[in-house]
Amino acid sequence: MPQEARQILFVEKPTGPLTPQHFRAESVAMPAPAEGEVLVRSLYLSIDAANRAWLMGATYKDAVLPGAPMHGYALAVVEQSRSPGLEPGDLVEGEIGWRSHAAMPARKLTKVTPANPLSNRLSLLGIAGKTAYFGLLEIGRPKPGETILVSAAAGSVGSLVGQIGKIMGCRVVGTAGTDEKCAWLTGTLGFDAAINHRTERLSKALKAACPDGIDVYFDNTGGPILSAALFGMNLRGRIASCGNVSQYDVASPDPGPAGVPGLVTVKRLRLEGFIVMDFADQYQKAERQLARWAEEGRIKCREDIVDGLDQAPSALIGLLAGENRGKRMIRVSDLG
Amino acid sequence: MPQEARQILFVEKPTGPLTPQHFRAESVAMPAPAEGEVLVRSLYLSIDAANRAWLMGATYKDAVLPGAPMHGYALAVVEQSRSPGLEPGDLVEGEIGWRSHAAMPARKLTKVTPANPLSNRLSLLGIAGKTAYFGLLEIGRPKPGETILVSAAAGSVGSLVGQIGKIMGCRVVGTAGTDEKCAWLTGTLGFDAAINHRTERLSKALKAACPDGIDVYFDNTGGPILSAALFGMNLRGRIASCGNVSQYDVASPDPGPAGVPGLVTVKRLRLEGFIVMDFADQYQKAERQLARWAEEGRIKCREDIVDGLDQAPSALIGLLAGENRGKRMIRVSDLG
Repeated sequence: MPQEARQILFVEKPTGPLTPQHFRAESVAMPAPAEGEVLVRSLYLSIDAANRAWLMGATYKDAVLPGAPMHGYALAVVEQSRSPGLEPGDLVEGEIGWRSHAAMPARKLTKVTPANPLSNRLSLLGIAGKTAYFGLLEIGRPKPGETILVSAAAGSVGSLVGQIGKIMGCRVVGTAGTDEKCAWLTGTLGFDAAINHRTERLSKALKAACPDGIDVYFDNTGGPILSAALFGMNLRGRIASCGNVSQYDVASPDPGPAGVPGLVTVKRLRLEGFIVMDFADQYQKAERQLARWAEEGRIKCREDIVDGLDQAPSALIGLLAGENRGKRMIRVSDLG
Repeated sequence: MPQEARQILFVEKPTGPLTPQHFRAESVAMPAPAEGEVLVRSLYLSIDAANRAWLMGATYKDAVLPGAPMHGYALAVVEQSRSPGLEPGDLVEGEIGWRSHAAMPARKLTKVTPANPLSNRLSLLGIAGKTAYFGLLEIGRPKPGETILVSAAAGSVGSLVGQIGKIMGCRVVGTAGTDEKCAWLTGTLGFDAAINHRTERLSKALKAACPDGIDVYFDNTGGPILSAALFGMNLRGRIASCGNVSQYDVASPDPGPAGVPGLVTVKRLRLEGFIVMDFADQYQKAERQLARWAEEGRIKCREDIVDGLDQAPSALIGLLAGENRGKRMIRVSDLG
């Protein structure tokens, strides 16, 4: 056991794009668990676009305050326990933050079973996998033969949305920011078409890729792709509002899409937001199904693992610029 | 039977606000019904904000083309019949247009029973009443004790939405464009609060009028009220997108609300469009219920009746400026 723990503080609220200067790494004395608490050591730290949104104010959780350790969801192992429910060696997940070690109440952690590989806990079986699963099936509700559009399709959530859509018997179209990502979507993941939103004219490309219109749009980005999708939606189409990554890392957000509420009414669209935690009572079912699809080879889950807690700021900045492919996470330490 | 019929043509697509110059009245030879058709005489013509949207392009129906008689929904009486399904004296409703008489296929008309007063067919029991009924109950789905906000609350739909909301046991808040309308909403119709959207600061007024937040927003207007409502919505709030009247009569529409999709996701909102015709299979149930509430004195239905077909253009222009209170219609002729 080292004498010190490492953590990364959030220093200052950005007024424009996020930079490494908005964070500071430091070493602190190893925390000691109080009664009812456990000491955990982080194994994998999830890096998500939502992390950026947390810096600006309250969202579905409290804002991260300047001067505090950065918030983050992580998989960890229990090192010491002063709680009857957990013992050393147990694997747990929770809001541990950007910290190598943390002493925290056992009730704020969820005990989990190992996955193979272990990192799948934060990708296929984690927030990404379950967000894709519930957002597509419970909010988007695609029917066989329908067309699904998903933005940020080469990301952790989008790449799974598209593959689940194919399992459901749908035509699946994705948008991504490079030709190489687009080639991966169609060549490896089985998407029917992919659109490079940085180089193609969106409305024209959507028409070509979705000749029968769009029935379900899984929206990870908001912004121009949402605007274009609204015009391409079919009557009674559904938009699952999952994220707004096009607007997280900018000084002044775009106005909202001009098709709201006009096209929503005329086309009888349903635009519905969700957070994966809304489906917490159905997590087990989703994890079993996702694991089965992966075992059967029907879902490929790509991970983008960066080594070392100190890399977390640059990993997040890079993710916001679209440099990751699949689920990005930090390997903080090995299970050993 | 006069020798001539009167009709009002749509002359030219507006590039700014609608004016009388966009229409022209003319007299034409009395039409004669062909086989399978009937000759109808219009009694009441419905004047609706949606009429304005029809001029700009296809909506949930085809656009009105310059040079054609203006489209409009009307209650009429059959004068001559060459169809076995209808006979002289029958009351019918349908897309008759801004015309004193029309010869049209019987299958495009719906036979209706009289109401008392007859004009109730186009208000309480018409599109307005059923739009309020289905939009609030099937899309908004309020629960007792929840707060409902409705915009254009002194209009034909909004005034019924609020009263149905009170029957459902909700707190009801409306927006309207004059203090006098606001006083009518709270003093006569039983709204809990009303906001003059032209003189009050919307976000502050909404907070004061909706101390527990907004659970259901029945949106007739889009624009700034939708934007403000998005910020005031509670978790899992519902927005019934019924109309966008703030944007119909302008040269360049506002951008969409900045809260889409950010607030939709964070608050897990459902924003859903609808058209009353989507519920055609349940019309009878709705009409019975609405009539019963009116008989019991639980719903007041105010009508704003303008005499004479030639007044239709100015009646529509005035409606878009908010001069009506309750359901506006033209009395084209008496049943006699």
